[in-house]
Amino acid sequence: MPDVFDVIVIGAGPAGEVAAGRIAAAGLSVAVIEKELAGGECSYWACIPSKALLRPLDLAGEVTRVPGLALGELAVDKVLARRDEMVSGYDDAGQVGWIESAGAVLLRGKGRLKGPREVEVLPGDGSPPGTSQTLTARHAVVLATGSGPVIPPIPGLAEAEPWTNREATGVRAVPRRLLVIGGGVVACEMAQALHGLGAEETTLVVRGDGLLERVEPYAGEMVARSLADQGVRILPRETVERVERPVPGGEITAYLGGGETLQVDEILVATGRRAATADVGLSAVGLDDHHPVGVDDSMRATGVEEGWLYAIGDVNGISLLTHMGKYQARVCADVIVARAKGAPDDLPGMRDRADSIGSPQVIFTDPQVCAVGRSEAQARAEGFDVRTVEYEMGNVAGGSLMGVGYRGRAKAVVDERRRVLLGVTFVAPGASELLHSATVAVTVGVSLDDLWHAVPAFPTVSEVWLRLLETYGM
Amino acid sequence: MPDVFDVIVIGAGPAGEVAAGRIAAAGLSVAVIEKELAGGECSYWACIPSKALLRPLDLAGEVTRVPGLALGELAVDKVLARRDEMVSGYDDAGQVGWIESAGAVLLRGKGRLKGPREVEVLPGDGSPPGTSQTLTARHAVVLATGSGPVIPPIPGLAEAEPWTNREATGVRAVPRRLLVIGGGVVACEMAQALHGLGAEETTLVVRGDGLLERVEPYAGEMVARSLADQGVRILPRETVERVERPVPGGEITAYLGGGETLQVDEILVATGRRAATADVGLSAVGLDDHHPVGVDDSMRATGVEEGWLYAIGDVNGISLLTHMGKYQARVCADVIVARAKGAPDDLPGMRDRADSIGSPQVIFTDPQVCAVGRSEAQARAEGFDVRTVEYEMGNVAGGSLMGVGYRGRAKAVVDERRRVLLGVTFVAPGASELLHSATVAVTVGVSLDDLWHAVPAFPTVSEVWLRLLETYGM
Repeated sequence: MPDVFDVIVIGAGPAGEVAAGRIAAAGLSVAVIEKELAGGECSYWACIPSKALLRPLDLAGEVTRVPGLALGELAVDKVLARRDEMVSGYDDAGQVGWIESAGAVLLRGKGRLKGPREVEVLPGDGSPPGTSQTLTARHAVVLATGSGPVIPPIPGLAEAEPWTNREATGVRAVPRRLLVIGGGVVACEMAQALHGLGAEETTLVVRGDGLLERVEPYAGEMVARSLADQGVRILPRETVERVERPVPGGEITAYLGGGETLQVDEILVATGRRAATADVGLSAVGLDDHHPVGVDDSMRATGVEEGWLYAIGDVNGISLLTHMGKYQARVCADVIVARAKGAPDDLPGMRDRADSIGSPQVIFTDPQVCAVGRSEAQARAEGFDVRTVEYEMGNVAGGSLMGVGYRGRAKAVVDERRRVLLGVTFVAPGASELLHSATVAVTVGVSLDDLWHAVPAFPTVSEVWLRLLETYGM
Repeated sequence: MPDVFDVIVIGAGPAGEVAAGRIAAAGLSVAVIEKELAGGECSYWACIPSKALLRPLDLAGEVTRVPGLALGELAVDKVLARRDEMVSGYDDAGQVGWIESAGAVLLRGKGRLKGPREVEVLPGDGSPPGTSQTLTARHAVVLATGSGPVIPPIPGLAEAEPWTNREATGVRAVPRRLLVIGGGVVACEMAQALHGLGAEETTLVVRGDGLLERVEPYAGEMVARSLADQGVRILPRETVERVERPVPGGEITAYLGGGETLQVDEILVATGRRAATADVGLSAVGLDDHHPVGVDDSMRATGVEEGWLYAIGDVNGISLLTHMGKYQARVCADVIVARAKGAPDDLPGMRDRADSIGSPQVIFTDPQVCAVGRSEAQARAEGFDVRTVEYEMGNVAGGSLMGVGYRGRAKAVVDERRRVLLGVTFVAPGASELLHSATVAVTVGVSLDDLWHAVPAFPTVSEVWLRLLETYGM
């Protein structure tokens, strides 16, 4: 094993492996260091297994709206088996094969910055004892260590061994009584999934006024109504004060701020994630161990002499979304290659333009929440001359064809000065693929006058685009 | 009833009613004449009922790919009842209400041009006897009479009372043995629908080499393979030479060019449509009764003195698609209003830009065929410097999450000179809402460099966009 590489990538999650693959494809030597599974959180414990669990529930919801079709009972064992298949049985051989075929070298172990361009690889997860190896990068080190769940300091909670996204997406025995702490994406998606798979008593304790507070308020309201209709109990403006689990694996008692006491079988903590910066040696290169790594729009870490350090994905705290991490990886890889070769480093693909516009996101609840760009509140806060239009998607012919009682809501946030879209939100069942039309329009800044000529095919749900523009006054 | 209106619209199908509504909303007086049902072919005998029949079959196809779900037998009666609901029991009261609430006047009867700005309204479907009324338009007459099915001159065919799209979409008793003549959109969609609803022996006789010859060849091949897998028999390069149906409503014998003889219960003719120009008085204003009405890009008929005649939708023969008819209606309405008011008539929305770029279309087979812009063959024939890229949609994470054995294929046609997309095709189950992203990109002419920053959300099928761009070399 050589100990000098052109580029060293720490972390082989989606961002790290994309960066490694792209840099290797350009002919540079790359080492990528991973302490767990190549493919990262997303492939084994987040996006992929959660969507594998949600897909049958989602489809079952669609079926109930279509006369003539009738479903038998859900075979939960088959759903879990399909999830296992989608996470490759928690085996990363496939991803390792991809990394190696891309020409990068995968090193198992924990990567930690040791000094300028120097990375220590500690065996296993980095716990001593063990012999470490030190690698040197000729050009750059890319930090792609991701993030980890935040466990709030509620007395008794850590001792009660709560579930995080990992245990929830990896569920083998669905708890009959489930307490979810949080009201964000993971909380909503996993409440939906586990309730659908058999968690009869599912309760969400939400600190704020509602669910999904980072998107348009109506989205959270629609999801809350839908979850409630399905039998999920949502307690807004509520907190968990104390937790007791006297017998490991046994019943849990949760004492709520409002006075109620809940007996549950498991607690899922979904109160956010924190950039994984704590033990990657940031202080050895003059950076702060306790905050996301600040970067410029070429993903280069700010405040590092000679600019050899880059940070992509969750660890930079910009957008905690797989696709944005991969996008940052592409930007970063192309920039590193250009700088290494002394080529122009400011070509169109070498700057992160998308993050500042507002990352696209699909939340796979029923209804799905699909948003890109700025919400109305964000746009107003930033001082834009805002006008909004909304439309009921069930009133589009393509919507009513989706099924009886199909409902959805679209909202567009328009910059009146430039007559372009600042943000678009669709909340409707099965709307996930509709989002990319908005992502193109918002990211590129297509004018409303041009959008008017992009005719949605009849009868699709996409015709909501026409209705939004008509409602605007076109 | 007044007999002078600012604008007279002949035909209250999707194009006619949109034009009437938009013109009335601008404050002009409008009469719209309809001999059948307001809402037209699309609402009662085409798009809407066909999609109502296809939706449960489509969804059933998706369910078979998702482990854990199991469907009971399809309740055909409920599917037909839902179709009846979607066509409002073939009652147009709802559409009439919409037209009237929009401020237009609906006249029942057959509209026929009598002279410049003059339209005769004949009672009923126009058959004598009956008293007619003559209306005069101050500004414009809009022809929106649509199209009708072509019945090929096969001996015995007309006498055998073959089905067209009307009988097929309105099916009450599904024929056990069905012969479909044609390989285009109606043939494929209705073969899929009727076979799925119980037509055990479904045979397609196709004159050409394959199905769906107007889109990328692989699309027709994928649909042919899928239909064949479902048990539909496809006979390419075959013709029906003669048909016999001795007893009305009884068994039909069809003699094929290749020598085979088929016994069937019904024949569906789906060999194309012809602009409905035959009996609308075109010759009275100096135009040809036997061809689509030629128009300029403001939808004004060419060759008519003083330019008072417009033609929108199928009758102009440009794009026989509901959404394009409605688009032309918007262009036409805005132009007429502008010209009537002496206002500028060349604002961005007042020219048909979309038709020449290539209309978007979704064919609701399984897999769905979604295309916009030019096919590779068209682009090459027009002399563009073409490069194409393709990608297997089952290899996108979002695709594999759709279900076991999910397959699809995307193809992009790039204009190498300008680095923009000339056309995009997606062939995959459930791809219909993905198309609008391509429609925006192709219609607006978004550069590949800009598209690169429109990041598809993970894990959706839309990520095929990233794969196409990567395959291109970005």
